[in-house]
Amino acid sequence: MQGQAQQQAYDRGITIFSPDGRLYQVEYAREAVKRGTASIGIRTAGGVVLAVDKRIPSPLLEDSSVEKIHKADDHIGIASAGHVADARQLIDFARRQSQVNHLRYGEPIGVETLTKTVTDHIQQYTQVGGARPFGVALIVGGIENGEPRLFETDPSGTPYEWKALAVGADRGELQGFLEENYDEAADLDGGVSLALEALASVNDGSLLPNEVGLATVDAETERFVQLEDDEIETHLVENDLLDEGEDEDEEADE
Amino acid sequence: MQGQAQQQAYDRGITIFSPDGRLYQVEYAREAVKRGTASIGIRTAGGVVLAVDKRIPSPLLEDSSVEKIHKADDHIGIASAGHVADARQLIDFARRQSQVNHLRYGEPIGVETLTKTVTDHIQQYTQVGGARPFGVALIVGGIENGEPRLFETDPSGTPYEWKALAVGADRGELQGFLEENYDEAADLDGGVSLALEALASVNDGSLLPNEVGLATVDAETERFVQLEDDEIETHLVENDLLDEGEDEDEEADE
Amino acid sequence: MQGQAQQQAYDRGITIFSPDGRLYQVEYAREAVKRGTASIGIRTAGGVVLAVDKRIPSPLLEDSSVEKIHKADDHIGIASAGHVADARQLIDFARRQSQVNHLRYGEPIGVETLTKTVTDHIQQYTQVGGARPFGVALIVGGIENGEPRLFETDPSGTPYEWKALAVGADRGELQGFLEENYDEAADLDGGVSLALEALASVNDGSLLPNEVGLATVDAETERFVQLEDDEIETHLVENDLLDEGEDEDEEADE
Amino acid sequence: MQGQAQQQAYDRGITIFSPDGRLYQVEYAREAVKRGTASIGIRTAGGVVLAVDKRIPSPLLEDSSVEKIHKADDHIGIASAGHVADARQLIDFARRQSQVNHLRYGEPIGVETLTKTVTDHIQQYTQVGGARPFGVALIVGGIENGEPRLFETDPSGTPYEWKALAVGADRGELQGFLEENYDEAADLDGGVSLALEALASVNDGSLLPNEVGLATVDAETERFVQLEDDEIETHLVENDLLDEGEDEDEEADE
Amino acid sequence: MQGQAQQQAYDRGITIFSPDGRLYQVEYAREAVKRGTASIGIRTAGGVVLAVDKRIPSPLLEDSSVEKIHKADDHIGIASAGHVADARQLIDFARRQSQVNHLRYGEPIGVETLTKTVTDHIQQYTQVGGARPFGVALIVGGIENGEPRLFETDPSGTPYEWKALAVGADRGELQGFLEENYDEAADLDGGVSLALEALASVNDGSLLPNEVGLATVDAETERFVQLEDDEIETHLVENDLLDEGEDEDEEADE
Amino acid sequence: MQGQAQQQAYDRGITIFSPDGRLYQVEYAREAVKRGTASIGIRTAGGVVLAVDKRIPSPLLEDSSVEKIHKADDHIGIASAGHVADARQLIDFARRQSQVNHLRYGEPIGVETLTKTVTDHIQQYTQVGGARPFGVALIVGGIENGEPRLFETDPSGTPYEWKALAVGADRGELQGFLEENYDEAADLDGGVSLALEALASVNDGSLLPNEVGLATVDAETERFVQLEDDEIETHLVENDLLDEGEDEDEEADE
Amino acid sequence: MQGQAQQQAYDRGITIFSPDGRLYQVEYAREAVKRGTASIGIRTAGGVVLAVDKRIPSPLLEDSSVEKIHKADDHIGIASAGHVADARQLIDFARRQSQVNHLRYGEPIGVETLTKTVTDHIQQYTQVGGARPFGVALIVGGIENGEPRLFETDPSGTPYEWKALAVGADRGELQGFLEENYDEAADLDGGVSLALEALASVNDGSLLPNEVGLATVDAETERFVQLEDDEIETHLVENDLLDEGEDEDEEADE
Repeated sequence: MQGQAQQQAYDRGITIFSPDGRLYQVEYAREAVKRGTASIGIRTAGGVVLAVDKRIPSPLLEDSSVEKIHKADDHIGIASAGHVADARQLIDFARRQSQVNHLRYGEPIGVETLTKTVTDHIQQYTQVGGARPFGVALIVGGIENGEPRLFETDPSGTPYEWKALAVGADRGELQGFLEENYDEAADLDGGVSLALEALASVNDGSLLPNEVGLATVDAETERFVQLEDDEIETHLVENDLLDEGEDEDEEADE
Repeated sequence: MQGQAQQQAYDRGITIFSPDGRLYQVEYAREAVKRGTASIGIRTAGGVVLAVDKRIPSPLLEDSSVEKIHKADDHIGIASAGHVADARQLIDFARRQSQVNHLRYGEPIGVETLTKTVTDHIQQYTQVGGARPFGVALIVGGIENGEPRLFETDPSGTPYEWKALAVGADRGELQGFLEENYDEAADLDGGVSLALEALASVNDGSLLPNEVGLATVDAETERFVQLEDDEIETHLVENDLLDEGEDEDEEADE
Repeated sequence: MQGQAQQQAYDRGITIFSPDGRLYQVEYAREAVKRGTASIGIRTAGGVVLAVDKRIPSPLLEDSSVEKIHKADDHIGIASAGHVADARQLIDFARRQSQVNHLRYGEPIGVETLTKTVTDHIQQYTQVGGARPFGVALIVGGIENGEPRLFETDPSGTPYEWKALAVGADRGELQGFLEENYDEAADLDGGVSLALEALASVNDGSLLPNEVGLATVDAETERFVQLEDDEIETHLVENDLLDEGEDEDEEADE
Repeated sequence: MQGQAQQQAYDRGITIFSPDGRLYQVEYAREAVKRGTASIGIRTAGGVVLAVDKRIPSPLLEDSSVEKIHKADDHIGIASAGHVADARQLIDFARRQSQVNHLRYGEPIGVETLTKTVTDHIQQYTQVGGARPFGVALIVGGIENGEPRLFETDPSGTPYEWKALAVGADRGELQGFLEENYDEAADLDGGVSLALEALASVNDGSLLPNEVGLATVDAETERFVQLEDDEIETHLVENDLLDEGEDEDEEADE
Repeated sequence: MQGQAQQQAYDRGITIFSPDGRLYQVEYAREAVKRGTASIGIRTAGGVVLAVDKRIPSPLLEDSSVEKIHKADDHIGIASAGHVADARQLIDFARRQSQVNHLRYGEPIGVETLTKTVTDHIQQYTQVGGARPFGVALIVGGIENGEPRLFETDPSGTPYEWKALAVGADRGELQGFLEENYDEAADLDGGVSLALEALASVNDGSLLPNEVGLATVDAETERFVQLEDDEIETHLVENDLLDEGEDEDEEADE
Repeated sequence: MQGQAQQQAYDRGITIFSPDGRLYQVEYAREAVKRGTASIGIRTAGGVVLAVDKRIPSPLLEDSSVEKIHKADDHIGIASAGHVADARQLIDFARRQSQVNHLRYGEPIGVETLTKTVTDHIQQYTQVGGARPFGVALIVGGIENGEPRLFETDPSGTPYEWKALAVGADRGELQGFLEENYDEAADLDGGVSLALEALASVNDGSLLPNEVGLATVDAETERFVQLEDDEIETHLVENDLLDEGEDEDEEADE
Repeated sequence: MQGQAQQQAYDRGITIFSPDGRLYQVEYAREAVKRGTASIGIRTAGGVVLAVDKRIPSPLLEDSSVEKIHKADDHIGIASAGHVADARQLIDFARRQSQVNHLRYGEPIGVETLTKTVTDHIQQYTQVGGARPFGVALIVGGIENGEPRLFETDPSGTPYEWKALAVGADRGELQGFLEENYDEAADLDGGVSLALEALASVNDGSLLPNEVGLATVDAETERFVQLEDDEIETHLVENDLLDEGEDEDEEADE
């Protein structure tokens, strides 16, 4: 109880340091990220894979309504986890930065540059008063100088570069799965398989196409592509991850 | 009591994160939505239906005074539930955005674009200090590229796309009714029937014309139309939902 | 006590939501309205009637000093109840809006438009920090396109359209009286009679001319007219509501 | 104690409503008015009388230093009670408004217009945060269209028109005296007599010239005139109110 | 304890009214004045005298460092008591106002006008939030139209005109001494004698020249003159107030 | 507990002094520095060495992602410890200042000038309200007029010049190691060796190349150079600090 | 405990008066001054001496890094004690003011003028909200019209002129030493000796050259000169204050 009272003292008004040097509002924003469903990013030699859990709470909610994968630029995609409305703000910010770069320099923005512009924006909300931090983590993936790059932005405004990562619910379990099974030599299809296997691993071992969002940025084409349900289904079948029983019910509904 | 005290700590001043990553002011604003009477949106192949419970507390209050269905543009209607004065602000905002789109691009605004412009506006009130969130949920329905679209905006600023949904009082019961009875193949009339049946289901099985607000956006005409009391009565009779006894009394009054 | 402590937590600083979705500062502002003497509005086929209780606390206070009925435009009158100084601010705001309409569109402002401009203004004071809500309710009555219209603005910023209504002290009792005795077919004189009967009903059954404020907007002339004491006396005599004993004393004083 | 604790909750920071619809900071400002010595205003057929208690705490303080009667314009005087420094601010504001009226319209400002401009200014300090209300009440007296007018501004920003009134210390007793003895038919001299009698009634029945401030605005000349000590003495002698014993001592001092 | 807790509630953040109509921050600022050493002002027929206690806490501190008498304009001097740094702000403000008057009107500012400009400035710090009141009282003395004038500004922003007054430590005792011994017919030298006697009366009956600051504004020359230590010594000797024993020690030091 | 409660009182809202003259928010920001991994700076006759502990929490996180050494200008490098997002803000600020200097004066900025510009910026965040202090310490190293210079900026905004220093985790132990082993006569290679030995001393005596960041600014070339992993490995081998066992595993992974 | 709780109530948010007229934040800022090492200023007939204790906590910290004596202008030096980062702000402010004076008036700024410009700046931080006071005291010494002048600025913004003074740690002891041994007739060398003796008196009677900072402003040359370590050593030897044992060790290190 003592600890709790002390903790409460540091999370009101503006974001300030606790006696042990922590920023509680930032840590609470990280909890908001954990409350969101999982998102995964995987970097392969052939490009970047973004995969998200988009199971919906009601059959009447449109699958497409759960927007967790976004195109930031032709060559960059972003997956998010956490507070959805906050994610939209950052995605919009990222898109505007991409456009500004095109206008100003006549060339596409670098993945790292874009990520760091976003994290600097996020940091401001953790230091200057009058607003709360963003309750969202982004996975920014794309191609830069022909090389696949994969970054994370966290609520403190720190940029991280990853080979593969998971954010949101079950992060611990998923990251463990990725660490065990990641193969840097894999091609883009291998990345897709790993992403789906990871998501299935925390979902009774199988998935339905409409419960998953999947996008890739191919290192050769340098184009962000969001996969359709039938393409996802093909991938699930190939990886023996298709939730057969449920799927039929779903199809009957449509 | 401990939990309550803790909860109180996070809902004063500006909207900030609780230790478990929640935004209490946003959750309280959702309670304000539940305090409002129910509103329903249904998407059919033939168009979109908006229906609202507009029972009035006093016989001297004008039925038309309970404004819960609004025209945002020729092809888009909005139904609201929750804090009425807040709803008016968002409706005005939506109308201005529609006009701006006409002026700037010479064409009507998309239903999705309009919804997301509104939710981004709502989000700002949950992150930047000096104001409270909007205590209202909107159902935005219209035709986009010939296709009926139906969205919800919630107090967090998250946009959702639905086949059918209810907001406001009795949301749980109404949403359950919709999930059970929704038929994607239905035409506009079928949608109207489902909406009325849903509202009647939480109102002793019958309704009076002046207790209901009803509007449609036909996929062919792409025109928002608000139904008159006699049209509503016809629909109620057709669906065997007319509250006969009460209706006579009402007519005697007028 | 628990409830009270909780309640206190939500009414300081700016107007924010309570856990059950209420805005306490707005509800307290409604209490400020109840602390004001009663005002009544009645819509008849022949026009709109505004009547107010203007009993004064001291014989040396000028009757005219209790300004509860105001002319907003040639065709619109406003009665208020609640915090007098706040009412003046809103009346001034309404007058400026009427003038702006004349200047901008060359025609008188609609009753509904004026009401909603005022309620939007009121709403701002309930959402944005740094100020308290207005502690006043207005009854806005006038003629629009030849039709009598009667609106209420409440401290939340919600506009309501009424056939007849009472605000301020004894609202419950007065509204009950109006509901029982309202006759939509009545002419303007009938409306005046109903208003005076209602006020007398909470004042021992009789009234003095200088204790009442009375104004009408005739549907034909479309002109706001405030009645003089002798005209009010005539109405009181006709309706057998004149407080004879007291009246003589008063006349002796003057 | 419970009530007191509750009360404390509503008077900090900005001026907000209490659960029963009151504005405590405004009520406390009214207490500040009561802490000031009394001021009286009387309207007669012949003009307006302003009279103030200006007894001084030290014989070394200059009588003229206690400025409680001020000239706002040639035809308008103002008496104040309460927080002296606040009064000066409002008097300055009133004078500027009078000058602005001269410049803008080429004619003197009306007494009612001036009063309401001042009360609107006062109201702002009770609604918008960042400042406290004015702790002062003003009596504004003057001639408008040949008619004497007498107004009060209170800390809430409400304007009242009076035949005769008292503000400040002993308001209850003084107002009672005025109600009992006010004669609307009296001329300006009768008004002066009544004012002095009232002040004497709460001061052991007699007054010293230098303990009283006295000013008139004659309905014919329409000129504000502040009376000298010898003129006041003449009035006191005529009304048999001169404090003979003390007066001699005072004269010895000078 | 109850009273203390209540008191604490009204002195935080901005300056607001207590339930009994007091402004505690202003009253606390008056305490800051009492913490300063005494200053005296005396008006005589021949001019104005300002005298201050400037005993220094360390022999190494320069006497001249204790600046309690300031020249505001050629014909106006100001003595201060209380928070020294605050006094400097107000003195600077007064000097700027004097210069502005010279520039704008081509003539010296009146003593009363200057005082009231300063008190209006002080008042702002007691009403508008974001700053504390000034913890200083000023004695403003000078010649206006050939007449000596003597004013006080207190932390509330109220101007007082005095024949003679003391502010700061021992105010009660010193003011009593002045009331008993003040002689309006005295000339400037008589005023100097009275000031020194007063200061000596609270200092064991004698004074050292360097413990006293002394300035005059002669009614004829209309010039502010600050007296040198030897002139002060002459006055002390003439009035038999020189602290002989100590003085020698002091001289030995220098 | 008493001390703790007292402490809590001084760390909310803005940064203010505690009764013993401390700024708790600044001290808490220093704790944030300690939470970061260690960074070391060493000044030798031959130039400046910056070395950082960059062990990563997950094998999937890119080594390069842990950015603790930054180039501020051609001749200046900066190592950081503490809150990463804050460090990025200060690094950006430093880079902009370097560019401004180039543009304004046509020459590279001095190491000391740059450091003090940064510390002045940091100080502002400890004195002016509305933001928290920076939770980061920087080591600024470079060549100025041919001389190696090494500075520290701490969260209070104080600049320190060092011969050698450590910040972040294990500062005490590392600084002790440096004090014992520092040799001012050493050349740049000697500085590199000392830095690696120090880092190894708190890491079981050995290091892996990818766990260390290393940069130098040679006094002759005046160029900031960040060392590659193989160069670091050479240094580790030369100093017999290479963690042989682990290294093989790592290489197998890649 | 009661006193402590009361004290806490007055030191949060902005700087406001306590019931006894004190400004606690200013008093706490004075504590911050005491936490700094001592600084001494001595005025002699031949000029001004500034001496500071600059013992360093680590042998690796550069002596020159402890900047406690600063040149404000050619003829003015400033020594500081307290919060180092705050001191830098005020020194910068003082330098800018000196430059402005050169530009505006074509002549060097007076010592007193500079001091008072600085104290006025300091005062603002004690009255206007949104920032804390400066936690530093300055000793400003220089030549003005051929005369040595010596001033102190304290955290309240009060300027003091001194013959000799100490600020920071051991102020009481050092000031006592100065009062006992100060000789106004001493020349500049005598002033240097007194300063070193004073510092040695609180340091076991001896000093090391690098533990002391020493500067003079000669009354004839009117030039600020900071002494080198060997010059300081000469002075220490002459005054028999050199710490022989330690000095050798130190020299061995270098």
